Amino acid sequence: MTPVAPLDRSMEAAYRALVDGKAKPLGALGRIEDLAVRLALIARRPHPRLDRALLLVFAGDHGLNEAGVSAYPSAVTAAMVATLLAGRASANAFARVVGAEVRVVDAGVAADLAPHRLLIEAKVRKGARNAATGPALTAQEVDLALARGAAIAREALQDFDILAVGEMGIGNSASAALVLHRLAPAPLDDCIGLGAGHDPEGFARKQAVLHQAAARGPVSTPREVLAQFGGLEIVMMAGAILGAAAAGKPVLVDGFIASVAALAAIRLGPACADYCIFAHRSAEKGHAIAVAAAGAEPLLDLSMRLGEGTGALLALPAARAAAALLTDVASLDDVLAGTL
Amino acid sequence: MTPVAPLDRSMEAAYRALVDGKAKPLGALGRIEDLAVRLALIARRPHPRLDRALLLVFAGDHGLNEAGVSAYPSAVTAAMVATLLAGRASANAFARVVGAEVRVVDAGVAADLAPHRLLIEAKVRKGARNAATGPALTAQEVDLALARGAAIAREALQDFDILAVGEMGIGNSASAALVLHRLAPAPLDDCIGLGAGHDPEGFARKQAVLHQAAARGPVSTPREVLAQFGGLEIVMMAGAILGAAAAGKPVLVDGFIASVAALAAIRLGPACADYCIFAHRSAEKGHAIAVAAAGAEPLLDLSMRLGEGTGALLALPAARAAAALLTDVASLDDVLAGTL
Repeated sequence: MTPVAPLDRSMEAAYRALVDGKAKPLGALGRIEDLAVRLALIARRPHPRLDRALLLVFAGDHGLNEAGVSAYPSAVTAAMVATLLAGRASANAFARVVGAEVRVVDAGVAADLAPHRLLIEAKVRKGARNAATGPALTAQEVDLALARGAAIAREALQDFDILAVGEMGIGNSASAALVLHRLAPAPLDDCIGLGAGHDPEGFARKQAVLHQAAARGPVSTPREVLAQFGGLEIVMMAGAILGAAAAGKPVLVDGFIASVAALAAIRLGPACADYCIFAHRSAEKGHAIAVAAAGAEPLLDLSMRLGEGTGALLALPAARAAAALLTDVASLDDVLAGTL
Repeated sequence: MTPVAPLDRSMEAAYRALVDGKAKPLGALGRIEDLAVRLALIARRPHPRLDRALLLVFAGDHGLNEAGVSAYPSAVTAAMVATLLAGRASANAFARVVGAEVRVVDAGVAADLAPHRLLIEAKVRKGARNAATGPALTAQEVDLALARGAAIAREALQDFDILAVGEMGIGNSASAALVLHRLAPAPLDDCIGLGAGHDPEGFARKQAVLHQAAARGPVSTPREVLAQFGGLEIVMMAGAILGAAAAGKPVLVDGFIASVAALAAIRLGPACADYCIFAHRSAEKGHAIAVAAAGAEPLLDLSMRLGEGTGALLALPAARAAAALLTDVASLDDVLAGTL
């Protein structure tokens, strides 16, 4: 994969001065100002544009689900992919509101999906294997998923200015908990949340299954962690984040699963952290660990835990506002001189 | 003024069931779901639309500024009004990002403003009087500002689905601190923040001036509080909030000054609280007191303290997403039956 270039910070003071010189009290736009500077650094110019936004929803299934880590059957993944393709999921509705296009990436759905103009076919296999009893993926499958994710992002970003990433995959909060546990690292129980919902019995079962999986012994590299525990949508999303960063484009990272994928991307290519905008604080337990491990501070906190990229989409206007501060707002000098 | 009708809560359970039946885990969209229910109650129908959004920026000057409560001269108010009318202020840039129109309301700018297609002329007088030495406004001026604000909102909302309110007025964080102090009520020092910025000396002067003003003796009704301490943009904004609520339309409330105006509106007509969506947690000291007194919880927290309606605009996509959840997202029944 193309390596990610660290941000060239030599222009940071100049971009900050540009923001400081706008017609507003110093620092009065808070985090929007910091974001503006970062977007300019990513774009390597003082006037970044984020008009064309693409959400990629990575979909995949999980052998872990056979062990009962979710309250829903794996068939719901394909049903929600169909809903996304029909434009009737929450992510589609939010995308229309904020002005973004949506594509679904079949990274590893455990069903044959009919071709569709909004579907990117990139299936590595029909679902990851059951991580409770053995490695979820082979090393080759991990590499293939990473490479496909990077290629999809690189190609898509020829036509788009900013990438948002989200996911759909029954059981993937279980897979993400295991990946996070090893990559953060953090105690497993701190990484396990309710996912799409559980009664106390179901949650206890999820915990037991994940402890069984985690007991399989140490793994050393991020790639090995992804092979042991990763879902294909998580690995391919990590690849897409690396690919977007390598292409010099910003990435809006959705909630828990996407943040774990971003953490994996950062472990594989630390420089990509500068290109990731963590969109919102998810209500899913473990998300705070993921963003802290990534050294990030999410923009929004709306108690959401849906996935699909819904949180990433809601942060898109804030990112565009940051770009517009640089491109569209008068300088204080212009205002005081009356030369608007 | 037309009284504000309390929300008819009889449909609340039905709207909540509609949200719960959408194709997503129960409660997974967090605060967006609560907002969806409220927007449906405000619209009195299950499919609210928020396509057409208007930001009204209320502008006014303050005699208090003669006493040195701000680091900026009052002339900056007119200069920033000119910037807003030229489409070059932060609020204009953000409005283009989120898809909202902007109008400036001259509630009491201390200068003659030339007519402009984006300017609504409603000047009550050239600036409020110096509240440090006597009442800022007469009772008649308060009533006139309230009535004009309500009329402007009512007329504008014939063409718009949702109103956002913001302000521009050098010295108005001082006026708002006094109003908040009496209306919350809360200790004056807890209501005084840095506004557009101060060095320690300037801030000490602001505190001293406001303590002098607050010492002028007790006032009993909200109208009296507004007459003693109110800026015209604050009073007219309160009138607009009451007018929008009376017209059955939701209002996005910006930061500190706008939240104090909303609190005044709520004290004058408590039912309007249900129509107010507090957009963001301002970095200005005292804002938390205002929203707590209004019984609200802001949607965003981006450490902003600019005003102009910039925070209200950034919350607009979240409100539209809430409406889109109701109007555009498939039900779980449809997904499972394959009848999308």
